[in-house]
Amino acid sequence: MTRVVTLTTDFGSGSGYVAELKGRLLHAKTPFTLVDISHDVPPHDIHAAAWLVGQSCPAFPSGTLHIVVVDPGVGTERRLVWARLGEHGALTSNDQEFLCPDNGVLTLALERLPQIAARRLHVPSSAAATFHGRDVLAPAAVNVLNGMNPGSLGDPLDNLTRLHWPSPKQTPTGVHGEVIHIDAFGNLVTSLPATLLPRLEASGCLRVGRHGVTTLVRTYGEAAAGTAVTLIGSQGFIEVAVVEGRADTRLGAHIGTPVAIDTLAPENRRL
Amino acid sequence: MTRVVTLTTDFGSGSGYVAELKGRLLHAKTPFTLVDISHDVPPHDIHAAAWLVGQSCPAFPSGTLHIVVVDPGVGTERRLVWARLGEHGALTSNDQEFLCPDNGVLTLALERLPQIAARRLHVPSSAAATFHGRDVLAPAAVNVLNGMNPGSLGDPLDNLTRLHWPSPKQTPTGVHGEVIHIDAFGNLVTSLPATLLPRLEASGCLRVGRHGVTTLVRTYGEAAAGTAVTLIGSQGFIEVAVVEGRADTRLGAHIGTPVAIDTLAPENRRL
Amino acid sequence: MTRVVTLTTDFGSGSGYVAELKGRLLHAKTPFTLVDISHDVPPHDIHAAAWLVGQSCPAFPSGTLHIVVVDPGVGTERRLVWARLGEHGALTSNDQEFLCPDNGVLTLALERLPQIAARRLHVPSSAAATFHGRDVLAPAAVNVLNGMNPGSLGDPLDNLTRLHWPSPKQTPTGVHGEVIHIDAFGNLVTSLPATLLPRLEASGCLRVGRHGVTTLVRTYGEAAAGTAVTLIGSQGFIEVAVVEGRADTRLGAHIGTPVAIDTLAPENRRL
Repeated sequence: MTRVVTLTTDFGSGSGYVAELKGRLLHAKTPFTLVDISHDVPPHDIHAAAWLVGQSCPAFPSGTLHIVVVDPGVGTERRLVWARLGEHGALTSNDQEFLCPDNGVLTLALERLPQIAARRLHVPSSAAATFHGRDVLAPAAVNVLNGMNPGSLGDPLDNLTRLHWPSPKQTPTGVHGEVIHIDAFGNLVTSLPATLLPRLEASGCLRVGRHGVTTLVRTYGEAAAGTAVTLIGSQGFIEVAVVEGRADTRLGAHIGTPVAIDTLAPENRRL
Repeated sequence: MTRVVTLTTDFGSGSGYVAELKGRLLHAKTPFTLVDISHDVPPHDIHAAAWLVGQSCPAFPSGTLHIVVVDPGVGTERRLVWARLGEHGALTSNDQEFLCPDNGVLTLALERLPQIAARRLHVPSSAAATFHGRDVLAPAAVNVLNGMNPGSLGDPLDNLTRLHWPSPKQTPTGVHGEVIHIDAFGNLVTSLPATLLPRLEASGCLRVGRHGVTTLVRTYGEAAAGTAVTLIGSQGFIEVAVVEGRADTRLGAHIGTPVAIDTLAPENRRL
Repeated sequence: MTRVVTLTTDFGSGSGYVAELKGRLLHAKTPFTLVDISHDVPPHDIHAAAWLVGQSCPAFPSGTLHIVVVDPGVGTERRLVWARLGEHGALTSNDQEFLCPDNGVLTLALERLPQIAARRLHVPSSAAATFHGRDVLAPAAVNVLNGMNPGSLGDPLDNLTRLHWPSPKQTPTGVHGEVIHIDAFGNLVTSLPATLLPRLEASGCLRVGRHGVTTLVRTYGEAAAGTAVTLIGSQGFIEVAVVEGRADTRLGAHIGTPVAIDTLAPENRRL
């Protein structure tokens, strides 16, 4: 395959901004495969973009270039960067490249793939102050695709900006986390990693806000329609679903809703 | 052109699940053209997916590979399949290949193109129970794109699962069908095929729920704005539209609303 | 890169009509890069399509073919056209080709790139009266991609249809325009070109409906969250935004809402 370039923005599907960005990218002399990841990131939502990029980037072929334009600070002093993240094993290597504002959108990608190199992009004075995606990132992408040495893109950068990301907390009464993502089916992805499965099995109950979910399954179709269930999702986190329904509306959950695995013996619990 | 691969899912546009699926597919060594058909099939709606796939697949170049992931039974005992449908004439042939759950999503495609071959895919134990699209269908697609003989994908399969699909019924008072699809303009596609046009012309009236539509046109622009009209749609079925308006809201129609061509003489009708 | 083909329709994202259109295009013998601009143009909204096409087409590589199917008059006497717009300088040239109904969708593109040539497409009698995109434009695109001389597409055409487009008006009390586009962030793009910036600076106030916006910035991040601001947008027009909010809901604005730069001295104004 030719090199892959992905796009993740909050411009809105069908936005003319996306079209302009693509038009500029397609001036590259080298063929590439353009993939839309999303243009429907909620406006200015850096956390949502960080989740999406972190979840999906490792699946792409090594050498993929990801352009991420969720950039509420466009035109201000926030930096624009090129970065290469990756890991190199004896048999395989997985490098992913990024062009994006340095506002935390790579936070989760950095949890999965360590930083190898980064450069701060120069912003030409001719760039429109409100559209650095088109006027800075797209030309940089064309240069990268045309074979420019990343070292020529700008000065080296040591530390990329990271968002505070909720991690599970151990307390005397249990392990506490929160809902970090809700998918199109209404399934709740929690911050509790799959490695906590034995704790969940021992406890028998995941609390989601004020609700207790006590049915643990391997996949959705194993419980009756309408049942609220917990399971290990495909992203490697404990998830909550309602079979053939929506867990978000049923449980009144949203991003940030607290979840917990109680570690008290069942007879000592007060739900 | 290179080989075409299409994607139809209910993951939601901009979903990270779609991105992961694409990322895995792009590991194929052979270039291909990736086309999104839809990621906004209503969640778990196998009928809607069957309509979309059946309507669109014959238009693609012979040899296109369609990946369909609308899979409420993911991880249960339902089968995953590779299938080749097609017809071969003296001058032309049209083969379309599919990778999908065997849950009926090919029902309408099979009406248009007979089954030539099918294989049941092996599900490796390492596959996430909730995401066979990523962990079974995508690797199978990569194998097919890389030239693997479909015979190596799994054991042969004779009969693919078919959904019950509403077909028109002849009664003493007329021909009865129902609304099977509503497009983005609010136009109602009915289960009454275009071959019933002479009957509609003789009758002069299509009943849609409790409404009678009496204006038959060749195309939307032939009647005044706001008029409810019947016409032969581009899919080969009798359709109902409101010129520059929405037939679904005007007539209170939805998927399943009964429609009928009365065959009584007009003087004997009671609408 | 291979030749680029873009699609702009009001069929709805995920519509089977889009899939059929793509399927037919992919029968071209020559490789090309297919780019979705939008399938979510509001139904029948020729003005919105004209904005989107005019805004985005100059950004694409010279020689790009844009297929635009927003066609409320499908099947009636309105013409279907192939057109080449462009400008040729000593150092650069920018040709963009179009296949579309001649209903005004090229109005804004023609403001940016003059007409070089146009042909009226022949409509074969076999074309479905309701889907000329699939049955006329797609085959014409395949012919163009396969190298057919545009002269063979149909008879030459001198004048393409243009919509009336709102242009700013000078009155004794100021410069009057209107909101011509609202983006996914709720930002208001006005019909007042960036060249009016000195007038806006002198006036210090842009009236939007009944509201006065008095903070002029270079980019969104320069004012506090919640502030209504004016700025020069990336499209070359005066825009109105609410920092980290939506200007459309805050100011009750919609397409067509009047805007004005008052030229009276501030002490004589009655807002």
